[in-house]
Amino acid sequence: MLNVMRRKERELDRAEVERIVSKGTYGVLSMNGENDYAYGVPLSYAYTGSSIYVHCAPEGRKITLIRNDNRVSFCIVTEAVPLADQFSMKYESAIVFGKAFEVEREEKLKALLLLVEKYCPEYLEKGKAYALDSLHKTSVIRLDIEFISGKARR
Amino acid sequence: MLNVMRRKERELDRAEVERIVSKGTYGVLSMNGENDYAYGVPLSYAYTGSSIYVHCAPEGRKITLIRNDNRVSFCIVTEAVPLADQFSMKYESAIVFGKAFEVEREEKLKALLLLVEKYCPEYLEKGKAYALDSLHKTSVIRLDIEFISGKARR
Repeated sequence: MLNVMRRKERELDRAEVERIVSKGTYGVLSMNGENDYAYGVPLSYAYTGSSIYVHCAPEGRKITLIRNDNRVSFCIVTEAVPLADQFSMKYESAIVFGKAFEVEREEKLKALLLLVEKYCPEYLEKGKAYALDSLHKTSVIRLDIEFISGKARR
Repeated sequence: MLNVMRRKERELDRAEVERIVSKGTYGVLSMNGENDYAYGVPLSYAYTGSSIYVHCAPEGRKITLIRNDNRVSFCIVTEAVPLADQFSMKYESAIVFGKAFEVEREEKLKALLLLVEKYCPEYLEKGKAYALDSLHKTSVIRLDIEFISGKARR
């Protein structure tokens, strides 16, 4: 851990970073705090290759902060295992930077279906009904990826 | 996942939140982006009860952002397992809000030793030497905890 995240030689190429983003279980969305503390929350997500979809409550801190400043980042860690004898950590992580936009209607449903496909592939039909039922009580945010980086120690 | 992080009834009491912060392997430090994207990075950490210590490179984006605005948050997730049949996620998470300060000398060494105790308890002696050797090439940041919250679905 004393070495985590510091070294240039730990930087990954684009294909490796995309693999991390594709397989992550959740990410932490970091938002500028509008003259207050920066805010980072864990969220499930779906990755399309050019953007990331997350969903959240229709009103709340996330939506308020993003409406004020939509320049966010999204951090995904797929492995973090202390290597005690090396005073270090085995890890894989990616950080995505981009702007966040609320989406509606067809795109919102598409995003919820992508989440169902990612997390509930064995319940696609039931999931589709669930997504339709969730449309009016959830917000969906699309993060358009502008820059992406990744690091790993294996 | 369609339900993650939304419900009041998922909020935890202080003792439960402290248990999550005590046992987390890493956290994501979110920083205000100084007229740019919010920045969140995964870091190993040590928890003292009133503060959190992290370490990083002596110069870099983290130190620059914190010197500009030290109001940060630190997000810890200790469990995240999709519950496909429920369109949800089993999770435990905590978010700590506070101000970040660079520390030096005795406190810096103390923080590095706390990291060794947490991550490398079986290598305390060697870790002490490692910490002493790291002093001049690492920065240590103390996050003084002002507010802390947690949520779980079990």
